[in-house]
Amino acid sequence: MVGSDFMVICIGIFCEFRYFMVVVSDFMASAGPKKIVGVFYKAHEYAEMNPNFVGCVENALGIRKWLESQGHEYIVTDDKEGPDCELEKHIPDAHVIITTPFHPGYITAERIKKAKNLQLLLTAGIGSDHVDLPAAAAAGLTVAEVTGSNVVSVAEDELMRILILVRNFLPGYKQVVNGDWNVAGIAYRAYDLEGKTVGTVGCGRIGRLLLQRLKPFGCNLLYHDRIKMDPELESQTGASFEEDLDKMLSKCDIVVVNTPLTEKTKGLFDKERIAKLKKGVLIVNNARGAIMDTQAVVDGCNSGHIGGYSGDVWYPQPAPKDHPWRYMPNQAMTPHISGTTIDAQLRYAAGVKDMLENYFKGEDFPPQHYIVKKGELASQYR
Amino acid sequence: MVGSDFMVICIGIFCEFRYFMVVVSDFMASAGPKKIVGVFYKAHEYAEMNPNFVGCVENALGIRKWLESQGHEYIVTDDKEGPDCELEKHIPDAHVIITTPFHPGYITAERIKKAKNLQLLLTAGIGSDHVDLPAAAAAGLTVAEVTGSNVVSVAEDELMRILILVRNFLPGYKQVVNGDWNVAGIAYRAYDLEGKTVGTVGCGRIGRLLLQRLKPFGCNLLYHDRIKMDPELESQTGASFEEDLDKMLSKCDIVVVNTPLTEKTKGLFDKERIAKLKKGVLIVNNARGAIMDTQAVVDGCNSGHIGGYSGDVWYPQPAPKDHPWRYMPNQAMTPHISGTTIDAQLRYAAGVKDMLENYFKGEDFPPQHYIVKKGELASQYR
Repeated sequence: MVGSDFMVICIGIFCEFRYFMVVVSDFMASAGPKKIVGVFYKAHEYAEMNPNFVGCVENALGIRKWLESQGHEYIVTDDKEGPDCELEKHIPDAHVIITTPFHPGYITAERIKKAKNLQLLLTAGIGSDHVDLPAAAAAGLTVAEVTGSNVVSVAEDELMRILILVRNFLPGYKQVVNGDWNVAGIAYRAYDLEGKTVGTVGCGRIGRLLLQRLKPFGCNLLYHDRIKMDPELESQTGASFEEDLDKMLSKCDIVVVNTPLTEKTKGLFDKERIAKLKKGVLIVNNARGAIMDTQAVVDGCNSGHIGGYSGDVWYPQPAPKDHPWRYMPNQAMTPHISGTTIDAQLRYAAGVKDMLENYFKGEDFPPQHYIVKKGELASQYR
Repeated sequence: MVGSDFMVICIGIFCEFRYFMVVVSDFMASAGPKKIVGVFYKAHEYAEMNPNFVGCVENALGIRKWLESQGHEYIVTDDKEGPDCELEKHIPDAHVIITTPFHPGYITAERIKKAKNLQLLLTAGIGSDHVDLPAAAAAGLTVAEVTGSNVVSVAEDELMRILILVRNFLPGYKQVVNGDWNVAGIAYRAYDLEGKTVGTVGCGRIGRLLLQRLKPFGCNLLYHDRIKMDPELESQTGASFEEDLDKMLSKCDIVVVNTPLTEKTKGLFDKERIAKLKKGVLIVNNARGAIMDTQAVVDGCNSGHIGGYSGDVWYPQPAPKDHPWRYMPNQAMTPHISGTTIDAQLRYAAGVKDMLENYFKGEDFPPQHYIVKKGELASQYR
């Protein structure tokens, strides 16, 4: 490790003791061949349709040759659920598990307990809530993600969803494919984005990129976060800080969720909070599905209190066929896709490769990539 | 009229002679009750769902009371096609015809010939190609539109369509409603907008507003127009001027059409020009359907040479049930809606009212509203 703040004493009985250690695993001690397990979505016939489509099982982040040429073992699968799944089989002797938020390999406390060799959990993308982070920290594991790899991708996608809802796009598209033409049936609830109040709940990297892209639209932009941006950044985004979440929400025509899923944000939008939103509010959530109370969103859309709901995150994922968000009115949902554009895949595949390279050499990662380091959760997860 | 440049000699046999006059009708001579005919889309049950939904037959731009209180007659209909339609009945004695591009009352040379009292054609919105402009000019009519009333609405909608195509939104939405989950089937051709080359064909008010909104996305922005923007405006948009249309088009990942329909732009995108575009190019056209060769677009989408086509304009409108654009792959079409958001309706209804007020008083319109004035077409229509 570079610097003393990540130094570790390597002891033979590390695996047995590590649950009680405050200091995390020593990458310096990790020389030698490793077993790396990747959990990605399967692309089937699509895998060959684009040479840059690296984020799938078949193309395995484009790092197989590189890993195997160094003597490492690289298992890749999409089979991640239940006691007999492929992932479960490799848990006991995997050193590294890589997965994505788009098809997450859930790393529970139980799985961590079984994973005697495990040192490193990497997220190819952003968002590591598929890992039981306290358990990972207690076990001395390192959890890291490719911070920044798809923030632009997600912010762009959020702006698309805002426009799709505000401008009532989908009813128009449906008319076209159904052979209809009824402008009134679209127009009576189609608006300009200009002049509307948009608030982001959470204003990290994605929230800021969204605000910067919203700025020329002439909206009233608000943000709620634990911390106020510095004045220069705030003026770049053109947004005003709102310390009180509910106060902000009551002003918003459009609410965008940009906060990680934590114990504090789980179910943040429950029946009571949704009832306090403006009637007809539009909600965009590309953060995590569980930040919403599933049924409260369905009820809000059914009653019209929520005028439209769009996002690409669900709980669980893949969303089952009977997930009620599939069938509620005025939804503009997709599978979890916003952060896995081809451009994003190339960036997060490169980021994972860089971190593995550091790991093999016993070097630190870029500091912003750590979710768990030295048994300590990054501040936003505490 | 204010100023001598719009002065007119009023003569009793005006109607008979006007086809040969260079000088247009004299609004000063127009005192007294008028017959005004409005052609809008019908809203049926939607008319009452939103008090600001003024752009439909039922709510008639919200000017009925105002007109009738001054003794004018105000006929409103959506029945606009064929020899027995309601519009045809009122053509002979109408003084003013108001219509919208969303449900255009086509004002042909034949209709103009029958319209013995006609003085003024107003477009509630932007785009007056539903009028035979040379015939209107020859007849000494005035044609005007509410320039600017929905430019923001259209520009926003274009940006939405760019994102919908670039990010491959619709296949994801379809998976959701069909109970599927196949991230790969979306991701293999989903991209970030960032870093892509976007070119606008035509860079009037809408094109500029689009470029301003695109600026924070980090694209390579190009524009083709008859005239180069002044340097300050150009730097505001962040776009580079391309004098040669085909040279620009060959660089574009995304082409946006922002030119009016004129004799020069009709069929501009024919088979030959489309063949010269990049393979997989995305096209957004909210300008006019007839700027495209209908079949060439279908063929391009079928072969994959066009990677996606989105727009809200068709020829004719309403698009018939068998219009091939409804059924071609990778289309993200809607009925003609982008300029008739509730916000736009309020603006163009106010603009029409202002122009009628000027007309009744014999005063000039804001100069940018004229399409035909003094028998002369505005420069972009020549």
